[in-house]
Amino acid sequence: MTKKSKEGLSVKKQENFSEWFSQVLEKAELIDLRLNMKGFMVFRPLAAITIENMFRLYEEELQKKGHKPTLMPLVIPEENLKKESSHVKGFTPEVFWLKEIGKEKLALRPTSETLYTPMFKLWIRSHRDLPMKLYQRGSVFRFDTKATRPLIRTREIIWIEAHDAFATKKEAEAQVQEDIDTTEKIMHQKFGIPFLAMKRPQWDKFPGAEYTVGSDVFMPDGKLIQQPSTHLMGQKFSKAFGAKFKNIKGKEEYLWTTAYGPAMSRILASIISTHGDDQGLIFPFCIAPIQVIIIPIFNTKNKNNIIKEATKLKENLNSIEIRTEIDASEKRPGEKYNHWELKGVPFRIEIGEKEFKTKKITLATRDIKEKQTLPIKNISELKELGKEFDTRLKEKAEKFMKGKIVNCKTKQDIKKAVNEKKVAKVNFCSIEKQGEKCAEIIEKEINAEVRGTLINKKERPTGKCIICGKPAKEVVYVGKSY
Amino acid sequence: MTKKSKEGLSVKKQENFSEWFSQVLEKAELIDLRLNMKGFMVFRPLAAITIENMFRLYEEELQKKGHKPTLMPLVIPEENLKKESSHVKGFTPEVFWLKEIGKEKLALRPTSETLYTPMFKLWIRSHRDLPMKLYQRGSVFRFDTKATRPLIRTREIIWIEAHDAFATKKEAEAQVQEDIDTTEKIMHQKFGIPFLAMKRPQWDKFPGAEYTVGSDVFMPDGKLIQQPSTHLMGQKFSKAFGAKFKNIKGKEEYLWTTAYGPAMSRILASIISTHGDDQGLIFPFCIAPIQVIIIPIFNTKNKNNIIKEATKLKENLNSIEIRTEIDASEKRPGEKYNHWELKGVPFRIEIGEKEFKTKKITLATRDIKEKQTLPIKNISELKELGKEFDTRLKEKAEKFMKGKIVNCKTKQDIKKAVNEKKVAKVNFCSIEKQGEKCAEIIEKEINAEVRGTLINKKERPTGKCIICGKPAKEVVYVGKSY
Repeated sequence: MTKKSKEGLSVKKQENFSEWFSQVLEKAELIDLRLNMKGFMVFRPLAAITIENMFRLYEEELQKKGHKPTLMPLVIPEENLKKESSHVKGFTPEVFWLKEIGKEKLALRPTSETLYTPMFKLWIRSHRDLPMKLYQRGSVFRFDTKATRPLIRTREIIWIEAHDAFATKKEAEAQVQEDIDTTEKIMHQKFGIPFLAMKRPQWDKFPGAEYTVGSDVFMPDGKLIQQPSTHLMGQKFSKAFGAKFKNIKGKEEYLWTTAYGPAMSRILASIISTHGDDQGLIFPFCIAPIQVIIIPIFNTKNKNNIIKEATKLKENLNSIEIRTEIDASEKRPGEKYNHWELKGVPFRIEIGEKEFKTKKITLATRDIKEKQTLPIKNISELKELGKEFDTRLKEKAEKFMKGKIVNCKTKQDIKKAVNEKKVAKVNFCSIEKQGEKCAEIIEKEINAEVRGTLINKKERPTGKCIICGKPAKEVVYVGKSY
Repeated sequence: MTKKSKEGLSVKKQENFSEWFSQVLEKAELIDLRLNMKGFMVFRPLAAITIENMFRLYEEELQKKGHKPTLMPLVIPEENLKKESSHVKGFTPEVFWLKEIGKEKLALRPTSETLYTPMFKLWIRSHRDLPMKLYQRGSVFRFDTKATRPLIRTREIIWIEAHDAFATKKEAEAQVQEDIDTTEKIMHQKFGIPFLAMKRPQWDKFPGAEYTVGSDVFMPDGKLIQQPSTHLMGQKFSKAFGAKFKNIKGKEEYLWTTAYGPAMSRILASIISTHGDDQGLIFPFCIAPIQVIIIPIFNTKNKNNIIKEATKLKENLNSIEIRTEIDASEKRPGEKYNHWELKGVPFRIEIGEKEFKTKKITLATRDIKEKQTLPIKNISELKELGKEFDTRLKEKAEKFMKGKIVNCKTKQDIKKAVNEKKVAKVNFCSIEKQGEKCAEIIEKEINAEVRGTLINKKERPTGKCIICGKPAKEVVYVGKSY
């Protein structure tokens, strides 16, 4: 589209994704790591505004589905954290503990089941109080011993966690489905990130859950990244905390609970990786901090007139709720084009002498790199063009994903698929406990993971487990992951 | 207005404010303390939504004034925290430390100067990068050894902190004024909470600041509570972190910085205390989670018709962005009235057979406890009525404050004023270091504090210091405080 400037990226996304990702975070001024705390990041305005926009879309959808916001403390008493035995076992190694103050032993919350469940116990008396659907936005903290990566693997995670309580298992299971639908409505339909909704193998579920459904998203390097997961906690936490309710017959029962955790910081990683290109970021129109950047092209003579016209245009667009800025700095137009392309702005309006006279602006579109002219009086068409922009990003991502899944009949096939940065679909004995050994063999020999089975599509295996040769009960997906 | 039900308050606000405040938090289902962690709270939906609405108004105003959002880590390296000597001294006793993991010594941030200043150092090269005005919303943590009180004195504070950098002291001082203006525009004009903008005595400033301007708000018990404060940091932090910029002549200088910290959790305490009455909460219309509650009054025969009409009305109000709910539960109308009065909903619409037939609803207004009728076709007038509602709350609070300040000539006068739950205005030697001894005498003998001088009104003392008898340089305000 334009020549590369100094501030641009020096690598191509396809050639070195890892370096491309680091450069984008830094050069587009999204994330800064120079506080030098392992796993902790500074979100610069471009990232902070995007995350705020993501939160708003997510929270709107959760509220539409009956969830109410709450705010829990950032810390948890040790006693709470240790109530549910498999939860303790899973999370204890990852907990940041505070130095003791008096007798209180507190931890930074790694997740908040052990804050919500005791409150459910106090807030819920009878079936008339149910369902209770709550959420909060905020940070959780996990001390991950693996290598950290900005946005992808961090020690502070910025997320929403929804915690819901129900009278029956059936309703709780329906909630798990609703959560998957929320991921579909927001992450896929709005942010343009398609995913595989995977019921995780028993050995890979959330510590304390009956089962977990994760959403697996492809990264450009062929690895999968787990995005929002939802968990059927069943009655495990309610039993640990004694959280009961009186059913319609007046009999006491334990609550059925679920949890859902979309992490904005992590989803942002997928948005950047999926949509970005060799020029830099491409933000979906619906969450872009700046949706339209106006570049006035002026000389000393016509500067005032052009800027005036640009300002009018900006106010016009702002009034129809299109987030618009003007770059009236003294840089050359070409430099400005590069700058705002790097920053992922969906549309650029160029307005100079010609546009001023003809009353038609020049419109450049970030993803397809095409220019068109648009009469100023039709400027509100940008709303529609914004929707088309997002549809285009989504469809491109869907196409990318489609080509990534390969039916495999042998270990060799899997190896080949994984080496080609794809995901293997294979017959497998079981995702219950008894399948774990076969999964370990895959991990050891192929260095890939059994991610689970599709939750919303019953896929029938047509033969034997690809590893142990026993009758296959499942069709599972195998790939590398973050 | 209606009879008292079981769920109502059992004390009057004027008779026992402290108990009234506790009961409101609990019975209106705002705050829950039963996690039993000293100084940490659970914000239930009513409080969480109110705080979200407060954040949005505050952030909109900050952004209008050129601030950009950021997100800093919740933790700070020990090394950063200890860079500025008076800051360390002031905050160290209040810091929550994490247990060490490897070599990293981390603390929960008590405030974020020591995160922003090192980033300013990296982000700002020259005067062309200035001013840089940033903020974040989030939690800070202070281990307060005094008795904690929900919302008022807590260990986790939910706030906004704005951190700004400038090329000159003059601009930094103008920012302090702008911050006071923001408090005026939002806390006073929107939330209806008037305040005294006080330049704090040197012995009461923010640790590390050149000077601090606090905003003092009256509580119903006559004590003052400090609401948003703004600090001229001067070059103290920039010198500690070596944060310089090249001025217009190409010469390196240290940055001038400011900080501003409106705490939503604490301002909520003032909103509750100032506007509430013996029936419970009264939320300003502009931040009320529910602005209008519709109570359908039906019998088995007309239930369907009435509910249908109520739903139409609700949709109508929602479409003009008035947050409206229907209470269609099986409780008696009187119970519902009490319930929603306790929860502070500004307007109640009653719609029954009569209203259905005459196409005029009955409108009850929470603060003045009056009913009126309003033709359904004029329902959009509620927007205007909402503004008048907020003006009424604000003017009532202003009137309350006006009567609270008393000119005092002797120690006896001060004692009397303070005992009458008022604030004394007195001639005082100095709010510089040399005045501290006189302040200590006041604290010891009268158990009251010298809060400072009005920042935006130069009040000339007319005689001698009320304590030491030396010529008075200042007119200060003396009162009890939270």
